[in-house]
Amino acid sequence: MTELTPKGVRDFLPEEKIIRDKIIEVLRKSFELYGYNPIETPALERMEILASKYAGGDEILKEIFKLKDQGGRDLGLRYDLTVPFARVIAMNPNLKMPFKRYQIDRVWRDGPIKLGRYREFCQADVDVVGIKSVGAEAEVLAIAKSVFDKLKFDIAIEVNNRKLLNKIIEFSGVKTDKADDVILSLDKLKKIGSAAVGEELKEKGIKQEVIYKLIKIIAVSGANEKILEELEKILGKCEGIDELKELLKLTKEFGVEIEITPTLARGLSYYTGTVYEVYLKKSQIKSSIAAGGRYDKMIGLLLERNEEFPAVGISFGIDVIADAIKLEGKIKARKSVVDVYVAPIGDVMPKAISLLQALRKEGIKADMDLMGKGVTKNLSFANSYGIRYVVFLGENEIKEKKVKLRDMEKGEEKLLNVEEVVKILK
Amino acid sequence: MTELTPKGVRDFLPEEKIIRDKIIEVLRKSFELYGYNPIETPALERMEILASKYAGGDEILKEIFKLKDQGGRDLGLRYDLTVPFARVIAMNPNLKMPFKRYQIDRVWRDGPIKLGRYREFCQADVDVVGIKSVGAEAEVLAIAKSVFDKLKFDIAIEVNNRKLLNKIIEFSGVKTDKADDVILSLDKLKKIGSAAVGEELKEKGIKQEVIYKLIKIIAVSGANEKILEELEKILGKCEGIDELKELLKLTKEFGVEIEITPTLARGLSYYTGTVYEVYLKKSQIKSSIAAGGRYDKMIGLLLERNEEFPAVGISFGIDVIADAIKLEGKIKARKSVVDVYVAPIGDVMPKAISLLQALRKEGIKADMDLMGKGVTKNLSFANSYGIRYVVFLGENEIKEKKVKLRDMEKGEEKLLNVEEVVKILK
Repeated sequence: MTELTPKGVRDFLPEEKIIRDKIIEVLRKSFELYGYNPIETPALERMEILASKYAGGDEILKEIFKLKDQGGRDLGLRYDLTVPFARVIAMNPNLKMPFKRYQIDRVWRDGPIKLGRYREFCQADVDVVGIKSVGAEAEVLAIAKSVFDKLKFDIAIEVNNRKLLNKIIEFSGVKTDKADDVILSLDKLKKIGSAAVGEELKEKGIKQEVIYKLIKIIAVSGANEKILEELEKILGKCEGIDELKELLKLTKEFGVEIEITPTLARGLSYYTGTVYEVYLKKSQIKSSIAAGGRYDKMIGLLLERNEEFPAVGISFGIDVIADAIKLEGKIKARKSVVDVYVAPIGDVMPKAISLLQALRKEGIKADMDLMGKGVTKNLSFANSYGIRYVVFLGENEIKEKKVKLRDMEKGEEKLLNVEEVVKILK
Repeated sequence: MTELTPKGVRDFLPEEKIIRDKIIEVLRKSFELYGYNPIETPALERMEILASKYAGGDEILKEIFKLKDQGGRDLGLRYDLTVPFARVIAMNPNLKMPFKRYQIDRVWRDGPIKLGRYREFCQADVDVVGIKSVGAEAEVLAIAKSVFDKLKFDIAIEVNNRKLLNKIIEFSGVKTDKADDVILSLDKLKKIGSAAVGEELKEKGIKQEVIYKLIKIIAVSGANEKILEELEKILGKCEGIDELKELLKLTKEFGVEIEITPTLARGLSYYTGTVYEVYLKKSQIKSSIAAGGRYDKMIGLLLERNEEFPAVGISFGIDVIADAIKLEGKIKARKSVVDVYVAPIGDVMPKAISLLQALRKEGIKADMDLMGKGVTKNLSFANSYGIRYVVFLGENEIKEKKVKLRDMEKGEEKLLNVEEVVKILK
């Protein structure tokens, strides 16, 4: 039956959607506590915007879902939330800076489908424009901490700085045209170890003396302060190190632990300073669950303006977080939001409806059998949706001005008045 | 600058998005109180599904945004949430009935752009499959009442039944091929009056004696019970009238007022029984803000199954509700979610950050100047975003273990300790 939907897209039935909504609620609350405001941009963008060379680059261009409107205009579905954000900044020059916004929304990429990769997926992005100091990064990382604290996940935040990476490349004598290649190999250090990194660099045609220098640098380890101190001894003064020192100080003040990781690169070429990736500790999920950095030049270039728009952001992957929650059972899966199911017995509709509405008025999520299905079928219905409580109401109960509350988990039944039922259900 | 976005789509900056989020929150809460569960379906659907003749029909087919994926498959952006819902029912035959779901999501139509009509817009749909009794309709109308009560709108709910309309057509002697045309004219009664309806019917080539019969029927007025009684006298026994009687009884039990309107049609051809439209009383917004009905055949036909899937739904238009709220000022417009802005004076960063984080820990939405902008600029910033409170923290305040709280609305400043500030802000 899967042929009824496009490849790489998914339906979320209540069991999954309830978890996704919960994640989104936690994200929204944290974003707003940190002073970020919601915006919404359309799914459809003009191709000129999406295809800008300062946006996603060639790789992403291939993966844009392209379409035309009736007027023959070239449109596409957005592939991220950063490019539309840059466009919003361009179109609203009167926005008072710094402008802090979040957007939780879907994006589309018509790429190959692998495990955990979809053609339609959801991102939660927080970005601020207009702050040059690394205070912006510190605050954004504090949001990540706040989100995962609430979701009860232990996280590790790896941090680096593009200027430090550039300095390492320059200091080691890597030629400019090989820089990206070398950075890609360095980024694999944690996965494959330094010997294999050296091997890979050799295969890429890097000179042995350059490799020695690189290996010596990436061998630096220990506490954050020690790493920065050692790197400074080797490389000399460097803006990237200074920024990391400042960030280290500020993240401490925000109560956020970070791990300075001088080999960490980030795929996207538009990062200009700090970059970071967030991982789950002690989890089967090995990929990053949130990531971002500083991109001071991208917005100006995209807008073809000779101006810098200092910008910092972080993007949370709703799908990978949902996977982690399902794997670790952090949120109890529910097939239904319903707290109580009202089962009328016999011809008691008016009374049953008043009971139902009274429960809802108290904020209790209530459903009712509107079809006179009978006791057994109603119990089986409540059971199949995992509804914890069933309330029976028949002539006898009405006479006694009570209802019968059944706790499906304990298998207990009690004759109670409505106030008592409300108390239990709340 | 508008050429940067596609025609007929919109950005929502915080001021508007905050209102939309509020509306969506009210809708979600009501839907869940009524036992409806959230689902999510993708924006992209296969063209075979979207183009089914039992779905939207030719009119809508023209307005589908069409695209292809890399594998050359024909896809489209969904134009409503009902067709995807029917597909979900088809793909999940093990869903226990009745299945109640809601979805609040965007849809796309590449149609002409008029005032209040967009190419990308948001709908909130509630549907239940598996209930034959009009209890389903009564409950769905109770949701509408609950939603607009919370949004503080007075509403009128016009209700009709397709079977009654069909009976009227048959009784008056309208020929089958003219039925839809006649229904369209009858539907205009409230707008243009019965004389103009008669005129229009004449122009459409309807015989005078048929018109007389129709005019006599649509002249029936008064209280709901009286309307139904009179119609029964004219038309004789009719399933549509019986269903409306039952619905009238049940809506009363649910505490919902309805207005039986025998001329009310609804555009979509798939309705089979009850239809309804919700209007705002005493509002400049004259179009319906929610509408729906019973469609017992559509899902079975769409799935090419020889089965009936009794289904009832209602769709709320987020855009028109947002317009009404802006017009009537029902929700105070805010440019920012931020409750308080922390303005450090001098070199007090660590203390300012702890204050900021302490406020956030208390659930207060707080932002802070990370750039050392100075008092005047900070006040102007808070003012431009309509942030009610500013907290100043300098060396003096730190010495006294206090902070200075400025109420921007009243223009008052007070020296307080943090607990007092928290109390005021909460």
